[in-house]
Amino acid sequence: MKAIVFEAPELIECLDREKPVKEEGYVLIKSAFAGICGSDLYIYSGTHPRAKTGLILGHEFSGTIASENEKFKIGTQVTVNPLIKCGQCSTCIAGLSHVCENLRLIGIDSDGGMSEFVKVPIENVYPLPEDMPLKAGALIEPVAVTVHAIRQGQYTPGDSVVIFGAGTIGICLALTLRNFGATNITIVEPNEYRQSHASNLGFNTINPKKESVKDVIEAGTNGIGADFVFDCAGHPSVLKDIIDITKIKGKIIIVAAYKKPGEVNLLQSMFKELSIQFVRVYTDRDFQLALEIVSRNPEYQKVITHELLP
Amino acid sequence: MKAIVFEAPELIECLDREKPVKEEGYVLIKSAFAGICGSDLYIYSGTHPRAKTGLILGHEFSGTIASENEKFKIGTQVTVNPLIKCGQCSTCIAGLSHVCENLRLIGIDSDGGMSEFVKVPIENVYPLPEDMPLKAGALIEPVAVTVHAIRQGQYTPGDSVVIFGAGTIGICLALTLRNFGATNITIVEPNEYRQSHASNLGFNTINPKKESVKDVIEAGTNGIGADFVFDCAGHPSVLKDIIDITKIKGKIIIVAAYKKPGEVNLLQSMFKELSIQFVRVYTDRDFQLALEIVSRNPEYQKVITHELLP
Amino acid sequence: MKAIVFEAPELIECLDREKPVKEEGYVLIKSAFAGICGSDLYIYSGTHPRAKTGLILGHEFSGTIASENEKFKIGTQVTVNPLIKCGQCSTCIAGLSHVCENLRLIGIDSDGGMSEFVKVPIENVYPLPEDMPLKAGALIEPVAVTVHAIRQGQYTPGDSVVIFGAGTIGICLALTLRNFGATNITIVEPNEYRQSHASNLGFNTINPKKESVKDVIEAGTNGIGADFVFDCAGHPSVLKDIIDITKIKGKIIIVAAYKKPGEVNLLQSMFKELSIQFVRVYTDRDFQLALEIVSRNPEYQKVITHELLP
Amino acid sequence: MKAIVFEAPELIECLDREKPVKEEGYVLIKSAFAGICGSDLYIYSGTHPRAKTGLILGHEFSGTIASENEKFKIGTQVTVNPLIKCGQCSTCIAGLSHVCENLRLIGIDSDGGMSEFVKVPIENVYPLPEDMPLKAGALIEPVAVTVHAIRQGQYTPGDSVVIFGAGTIGICLALTLRNFGATNITIVEPNEYRQSHASNLGFNTINPKKESVKDVIEAGTNGIGADFVFDCAGHPSVLKDIIDITKIKGKIIIVAAYKKPGEVNLLQSMFKELSIQFVRVYTDRDFQLALEIVSRNPEYQKVITHELLP
Ligand SMILES: NC(=O)c1ccc[n+]([C@@H]2O[C@H](COP(=O)([O-])OP(=O)(O)OC[C@H]3O[C@@H](n4cnc5c(N)ncnc54)[C@H](OP(=O)(O)O)[C@@H]3O)[C@@H](O)[C@H]2O)c1
Ligand SMILES: NC(=O)c1ccc[n+]([C@@H]2O[C@H](COP(=O)([O-])OP(=O)(O)OC[C@H]3O[C@@H](n4cnc5c(N)ncnc54)[C@H](OP(=O)(O)O)[C@@H]3O)[C@@H](O)[C@H]2O)c1
Ligand SMILES: NC(=O)c1ccc[n+]([C@@H]2O[C@H](COP(=O)([O-])OP(=O)(O)OC[C@H]3O[C@@H](n4cnc5c(N)ncnc54)[C@H](OP(=O)(O)O)[C@@H]3O)[C@@H](O)[C@H]2O)c1
Ligand SMILES: NC(=O)c1ccc[n+]([C@@H]2O[C@H](COP(=O)([O-])OP(=O)(O)OC[C@H]3O[C@@H](n4cnc5c(N)ncnc54)[C@H](OP(=O)(O)O)[C@@H]3O)[C@@H](O)[C@H]2O)c1
Ligand SMILES: [Zn+2]
Ligand SMILES: [Zn+2]
Ligand SMILES: [Zn+2]
Ligand SMILES: [Zn+2]
Repeated sequence: MKAIVFEAPELIECLDREKPVKEEGYVLIKSAFAGICGSDLYIYSGTHPRAKTGLILGHEFSGTIASENEKFKIGTQVTVNPLIKCGQCSTCIAGLSHVCENLRLIGIDSDGGMSEFVKVPIENVYPLPEDMPLKAGALIEPVAVTVHAIRQGQYTPGDSVVIFGAGTIGICLALTLRNFGATNITIVEPNEYRQSHASNLGFNTINPKKESVKDVIEAGTNGIGADFVFDCAGHPSVLKDIIDITKIKGKIIIVAAYKKPGEVNLLQSMFKELSIQFVRVYTDRDFQLALEIVSRNPEYQKVITHELLP
Repeated sequence: MKAIVFEAPELIECLDREKPVKEEGYVLIKSAFAGICGSDLYIYSGTHPRAKTGLILGHEFSGTIASENEKFKIGTQVTVNPLIKCGQCSTCIAGLSHVCENLRLIGIDSDGGMSEFVKVPIENVYPLPEDMPLKAGALIEPVAVTVHAIRQGQYTPGDSVVIFGAGTIGICLALTLRNFGATNITIVEPNEYRQSHASNLGFNTINPKKESVKDVIEAGTNGIGADFVFDCAGHPSVLKDIIDITKIKGKIIIVAAYKKPGEVNLLQSMFKELSIQFVRVYTDRDFQLALEIVSRNPEYQKVITHELLP
Repeated sequence: MKAIVFEAPELIECLDREKPVKEEGYVLIKSAFAGICGSDLYIYSGTHPRAKTGLILGHEFSGTIASENEKFKIGTQVTVNPLIKCGQCSTCIAGLSHVCENLRLIGIDSDGGMSEFVKVPIENVYPLPEDMPLKAGALIEPVAVTVHAIRQGQYTPGDSVVIFGAGTIGICLALTLRNFGATNITIVEPNEYRQSHASNLGFNTINPKKESVKDVIEAGTNGIGADFVFDCAGHPSVLKDIIDITKIKGKIIIVAAYKKPGEVNLLQSMFKELSIQFVRVYTDRDFQLALEIVSRNPEYQKVITHELLP
Repeated sequence: MKAIVFEAPELIECLDREKPVKEEGYVLIKSAFAGICGSDLYIYSGTHPRAKTGLILGHEFSGTIASENEKFKIGTQVTVNPLIKCGQCSTCIAGLSHVCENLRLIGIDSDGGMSEFVKVPIENVYPLPEDMPLKAGALIEPVAVTVHAIRQGQYTPGDSVVIFGAGTIGICLALTLRNFGATNITIVEPNEYRQSHASNLGFNTINPKKESVKDVIEAGTNGIGADFVFDCAGHPSVLKDIIDITKIKGKIIIVAAYKKPGEVNLLQSMFKELSIQFVRVYTDRDFQLALEIVSRNPEYQKVITHELLP
């Protein structure tokens, strides 16, 4: 079968590989669509700490059931929760397996969905509604990240929000927050193409290269600042703005994966009694909720900018 | 009367000053003891953003009532909550006046307790138990900072704790935590004199210059890390250790006032889903609780290392 | 001017009354619409503990500015937050003035909006968007109750909900929850007219006289139970069901005002480690959010079943 | 061997029984001390829903290791966490196994510690410090209930507390709260013997038959009420007092197991925006903390009023 393989740093190719063989507790999926995530670019660069050469990429994907099993009929539309948890560490035992000490991902630590067939543990498979386009199934994973950020970060419905970054995560977060009743959402994004994409989806936007984020947010909040600020950019330049625009006793949620330690104005944070909550991936419940939200709201599909064939 | 005055950068002198005149809503206090706080050194350096030359220092002090008033008898032993709140800003209106946008302190923004007499708003005055040494009254303010850090930071009784810094705040915090039932307390402090002071008070200590903080804490927690970590050092060097030793989903409380932005390992914090809570000064309730704790526990007086006369 | 006056138990009449005179800090409003609340019926019955005969009713109303003032132009469309707080009690000082020990309401403790003109403190007046029908302005108050129930009760977006009662509060709560992203909402209501009203608005409904609430909810949640249960009925018969259908460690929010103490299965609640949060009226922020939600969502106006002229 | 067996309703006898046989994953303990709990009386009455005739009683006990195993030496002093969790239900999977849907207890659902030897799963066994009297080992279980009530109920150090009931649980809770820094503790208890026991241990006490609980608490809190109220009585008569004395927005923790549904003043609870948290047994962490607290504080042993031999 054909598969997209990480061969060496800066070398990813479409190669011929053996079709995986069915195994107890696993099921074969015929892949349909897979998203390209920032971590795929990271793997491509050759510096990802865990991904090994020879890996088939793809951790956000959809497809159809392709092997007999006790749970799903052949042909059922599905998506896959890529998280593999150890079940043994103290975090898993405390019921917090999404931050398992030994967390592994299908498509990063083992072969993923960018191939004709992929073999996954049957409990990681989620059926899609029949009328949901398979393309949308590849969006559940990033949307699950945003559902988790909102629930884990204890976002209070009605609170005002600023999001830094209009990448896949930032845009999906804005859509999910809108679905969760937030109306006062502003997205900060320097890239004009992405900024206008966010704007077209109906969000207030700020281009930090052209306007002072602080001035705009202060003007819009009677000088008080935002209740909740989400960092989906992960760029050192946003950290100053984030502290500046969060209200006294406000809450900052960091979703972004910073490549390097970042400079934080700790004195100003102390004067404001801020709290910072970091969030990682998603629980099973978040994944299930993401599936339901995406199936009800076709607007998520506007996040997809290009469709590529191998 | 004699008063200790900030005259110019690096010049503090004991001078003659007019005795303050009684005013409606205020009361005169004959000062007894005043603590020297880190912010006093900051004022001395001449770089404090608010303190002006001519200021009489002293925001943590005790004394006796020296003017007629409707609340306290002449001679009553008292201490003073130095916080002056505006009562008008959105934070004050929300009942969060300890983080008032216009917060001012007696002894920083107006004349303080390092003089024979000081005039303070009567509602800032707290009576001390008769059998409490006046010296202990000067400790209520720093202890209130620690009561607030514990309550605002939502410390859960029984959780394990690491404290960075064995200055007045770090030591008082360790004592207050012990009074609040924490038994598993470790203090990290590079200064050997302060480390042994902490050790003599019965706490586990680590000298980060001699031992790896990470190794010691991991060994003591089955590799899991500490539940709660308090930063009372405010030194850039501690930030790496803090993130390293906090357990997955653990909580970091930052009490320290960092002079400059600090480098934080945001990626590791995200992988661990940490939360960071900054805390500032104290509420009136915290101040009252601090007074009660200090009056019951003479051990706080061991925090006093020197007594100076002007 | 004409006014609807509580004359005696079971006697409410439309009478002639003096037009109120403008006073410093107050503004006159020409009334447009006023809702009839359950507490108005309570007053009518003559057993309300605070309402006195001679009172002009109406605490949920809209109108237009009718006297010169420094804040609003004559003719501005407005609604009124009827809460009058003392500002002196310990609760007010703690910033929790919505549960002021001496809470009073315009229309219950002093003359309300069911008259041609009503005089209210200017800070209780909220301007309405120009394109909002004045009728909708009378709905802000009950919707504010529901915004508060959700925010104070710390509803987590995505959680499943059961609401008992399809009165004004129950229906508005369901609409507000839907605006806040809840999708899994079920309303329990014995009155068929109200049940079908709820059903027409797109909610799942259960008639507890015809079906077992427990069976239906268990079937819909894999036997787990609901995450959040709101009591907007206040009828003793619901208490058993509420405990039965809330999941282990789930949350119950009681909005209803029970006329008599109710029988609660405390043993079952303990076995499930439930938590029960009671909620009362709304903060200023909740009221402002309610205004924004109602102005964006015309569907709230479907809550209005009849329009009456005096 | 000798064993104390529940033979029939109102018939418990000391009989001869076969010594249990070692099994994979289990260990034999030679019993030393066992507490008599309220649930033992419940079993005795014959109305306990799960306990079957033939059962050997005892779920709070200590002893010494009596069979070879890979974890403990023969003779090691131990106590036993009696909770047996299914590990399969949704609650267990969520890491909340202390409220497992299928929770079972050694000594209630299977043979317990009131016999010469008892066989328990090895992971339920906790070693005791060598210098700890074996008698104290029988107290860990009830103390774990109190550690859980405090941690799960999110008691904030410094808050004022009223406890209803001076039985084993109420007294242990007061001791644990004192160890966790609470100073303002009042115990309400009608039984004079138990009241004076509480008083001798240094707690404020109220006899609800002689004094008005409401008056005493109001007098002691400037009319504000208590921050936290724990119900360790489980008697219908306390429910009125509990609602009366909890401050506006205060917290009620119900530990007690009410035999019948209780009448709760829901209207007053709503006016005060109270919250009620029910708590059940303990997590493994609570049990471990209880062990540490009891080993450090010999005063817990004063809870033991009688020592009986079979
Ligand atoms: N916590 C988790 O479990 C988790 C899961 C998934 C993803 N993530 C992380 O979440 C972040 C977002 O993911 P993504 O896939 O959406 O990444 P992305 O496509 O790279 O989006 C990041 C966006 O932030 C923008 N940005 C750069 N500087 C900015 C500034 N000063 N202000 C505002 N925006 C700025 C970038 O603009 P340019 O294109 O011009 O640089 C880009 O559009 C990444 O760090 C990713 O690693 C975390
Ligand atoms: N949030 C608030 O409202 C509030 C209120 C009061 C105080 N504060 C702040 O709290 C902090 C503590 O106050 P303080 O009066 O106790 O200050 P302090 O006397 O300066 O104590 C700080 C201690 O930290 C030690 N330290 C330095 N590097 C360290 C490291 N790598 N690891 C561990 N400890 C290290 C210092 O040792 P050396 O002496 O060797 O440098 C010193 O003993 C200050 O930043 C202060 O500004 C905040
Ligand atoms: N917390 C606050 O600040 C606040 C503010 C406003 C209102 N409230 C209270 O909130 C509650 C709801 O207000 P509302 O104006 O919507 O009252 P409402 O119009 O009386 O609505 C209550 C509804 O509950 C229904 N009901 C009766 N028994 C039921 C059962 N077993 N299961 C389900 N539903 C049942 C009633 O049906 P029937 O008509 O057949 O009886 C009625 O439709 C009232 O108790 C009110 O006092 C509280
Ligand atoms: N949540 C859990 O997991 C858990 C675990 C263990 C125990 N429990 C429960 O916790 C409760 C306490 O246990 P226990 O072993 O300490 O029971 P206990 O020995 O029966 O103690 C209860 C005490 O409350 C007293 N009391 C009765 N009426 C009172 C009133 N009006 N005001 C104040 N006190 C009153 C009783 O006095 P008299 O003797 O005069 O009646 C008795 O001293 C029980 O309900 C038990 O089932 C729950
Ligand atoms: Zn794990
Ligand atoms: Zn202020
Ligand atoms: Zn008030
Ligand atoms: Zn279970």
